[in-house]
Amino acid sequence: MRQFQQTLTLETNGPGLLEFTDKTTQIVAASGILTGVAHVFCRHTSASLLIQENADPDVQRDLVAFFKRLVPDGDPIFVHRAEGPDDMPAHVKTALTQTTLAIPIANGALMLGTWQGIYLFEHRRRPHTRSVVVHIVGD
Amino acid sequence: MRQFQQTLTLETNGPGLLEFTDKTTQIVAASGILTGVAHVFCRHTSASLLIQENADPDVQRDLVAFFKRLVPDGDPIFVHRAEGPDDMPAHVKTALTQTTLAIPIANGALMLGTWQGIYLFEHRRRPHTRSVVVHIVGD
Amino acid sequence: MRQFQQTLTLETNGPGLLEFTDKTTQIVAASGILTGVAHVFCRHTSASLLIQENADPDVQRDLVAFFKRLVPDGDPIFVHRAEGPDDMPAHVKTALTQTTLAIPIANGALMLGTWQGIYLFEHRRRPHTRSVVVHIVGD
Repeated sequence: MRQFQQTLTLETNGPGLLEFTDKTTQIVAASGILTGVAHVFCRHTSASLLIQENADPDVQRDLVAFFKRLVPDGDPIFVHRAEGPDDMPAHVKTALTQTTLAIPIANGALMLGTWQGIYLFEHRRRPHTRSVVVHIVGD
Repeated sequence: MRQFQQTLTLETNGPGLLEFTDKTTQIVAASGILTGVAHVFCRHTSASLLIQENADPDVQRDLVAFFKRLVPDGDPIFVHRAEGPDDMPAHVKTALTQTTLAIPIANGALMLGTWQGIYLFEHRRRPHTRSVVVHIVGD
Repeated sequence: MRQFQQTLTLETNGPGLLEFTDKTTQIVAASGILTGVAHVFCRHTSASLLIQENADPDVQRDLVAFFKRLVPDGDPIFVHRAEGPDDMPAHVKTALTQTTLAIPIANGALMLGTWQGIYLFEHRRRPHTRSVVVHIVGD
């Protein structure tokens, strides 16, 4: 068995889901690994990872709307506001979703279901440069 | 080190938790791997994975009740309703729980705690056939 | 490739986040593995794992406050109360956060972002002894 690691840089423009399934697929291809596991790791605490539906863009819109209502900006329950009213809500939304994922690989391809895509979930209002590590283990 | 991969097919009958700890344990045994990690991956975006208490069935009932109240069917905040009022809530409940798990193995057994079981969390009302990949890496 | 497994014992004192990044880093060092993945697994269903901000302690306070409001102790929706009003809420908070994490390793160090720390999230009121497995795979 062997491993292959590469870091992706993703540019975001406010709250929303940014798909990077293709970029992950390219790293799997570059690794030459046919059977194994692709680990995906987000190096931030105000953006997170999701595997979600990749067919209807309304799903992404609705996810953003739901999390915005569940964890409202400027909620008086929050003390931490160092970077503004969307600072602490971003940490909570990260806690409620994922920072690490692992997707099995077979026949050189990610074993995603028909409707599954890999997304970065940006929780901050301002544009950010996000760093996501893809680490593949296998044969 | 080596690896072993098998796909489970699970039949669901409406919202609820379906335990498949035993099936995962059987795959660990079949792999012959004594020390390692068992990755579990759900290939859907309207059903998810949970490690939860396996003693009192009320825990499963309460989890379903909590998520139903938190993400109500037919919530007017949702635009995506292609498959009915439980469509988008299923995606949100998936985002709030897990799609990928990894459980260490020692002495040929999953290192689950005394009260931990592995569950598929079905979020849709209609019966579904769900596909879950178990991928084991180790020695 | 090879692997290294060690179990951490963490003592908690009521609801809150307990950082154990240093202890995980020490296990990575002890493993001698320079490139790989560190799996972290919590063997409980009333405490969970989070990767969160390690700079401002208010973030931890705010996370506890948010989850306490979202999943209130003694909520009449819950039937399971075997161990008191904070029993079932602890299971729900575990479902909403993580039980398993995987962090890539490069140059012998965890690839955590600048502000990321690894935390145990205790959900029960009484002191508990918690068991967390760190399993490292790599070279």
